Amino acid sequence: MNSNISDNRVVGIEENFRRASWKIKLKGREILGDFDITPPQFNALLTLNKEENLTIGELSSKMYLACSTVTDLLDRMERNELVVRVKDEKDRRVVRIKVLKKGHIVIEGVLENRRKYISEILAGLSEDMIDSVYEVMEMLNEKMSL
Amino acid sequence: MNSNISDNRVVGIEENFRRASWKIKLKGREILGDFDITPPQFNALLTLNKEENLTIGELSSKMYLACSTVTDLLDRMERNELVVRVKDEKDRRVVRIKVLKKGHIVIEGVLENRRKYISEILAGLSEDMIDSVYEVMEMLNEKMSL
Repeated sequence: MNSNISDNRVVGIEENFRRASWKIKLKGREILGDFDITPPQFNALLTLNKEENLTIGELSSKMYLACSTVTDLLDRMERNELVVRVKDEKDRRVVRIKVLKKGHIVIEGVLENRRKYISEILAGLSEDMIDSVYEVMEMLNEKMSL
Repeated sequence: MNSNISDNRVVGIEENFRRASWKIKLKGREILGDFDITPPQFNALLTLNKEENLTIGELSSKMYLACSTVTDLLDRMERNELVVRVKDEKDRRVVRIKVLKKGHIVIEGVLENRRKYISEILAGLSEDMIDSVYEVMEMLNEKMSL
């Protein structure tokens, strides 16, 4: 494909992806609300779950947020017992963030609800179509990482 | 498909969709930054472009935001000459919002840049695969509207 941006499929893909993202965002916000957690808090939990023992500076740069914003976020998350700040054993001046048991429970609960929503969307599709959705999502995600 | 949420494809689709949305969100924020506009301002522009002459109340409910938040948003957008508040001709107590020429230019510019980004992602794929992406996105969006 030449990068012809007037290709009608590109117009359709951009529009449908934007709308689907918006709907998933609203649905996601609703799910997070059930778990009494905000979208930035959930993003922080996912990031901390993926890479353990991050410092505040590392977490801030991964979330593309200012350190002060992340500090406020972590204060609230610590009060809610989702995470805890721990001093680094080798260098006591360094503070690392650990996800607590309640944090892991929230992550699993939210993801399970999101999967349930996606299962509902896919219900009634043929196995081949579900395979297509899977392949397209995998491919898009891989291409976007480049 | 039975709604089996442990289906590995569902786990993969949820994860890939979440990651792709996050990357598109970051890219989208970058594009909006080039146009000196924030994400909520752009959402407001798109909503007002789709349905003309909305009142503040109507716009607020479509954006799932409080009236006071939307009022602040519109103040900034009016200062930036993206939109204008106009009194309804039939009922002068009703205020409606109109997208100005600069607003339309920003919408088109942002969408063109997003399409360009998607073209880059799709570059190198076979025509059949691009058709698949198009069909999957169309289907997902349609299913989510139900």
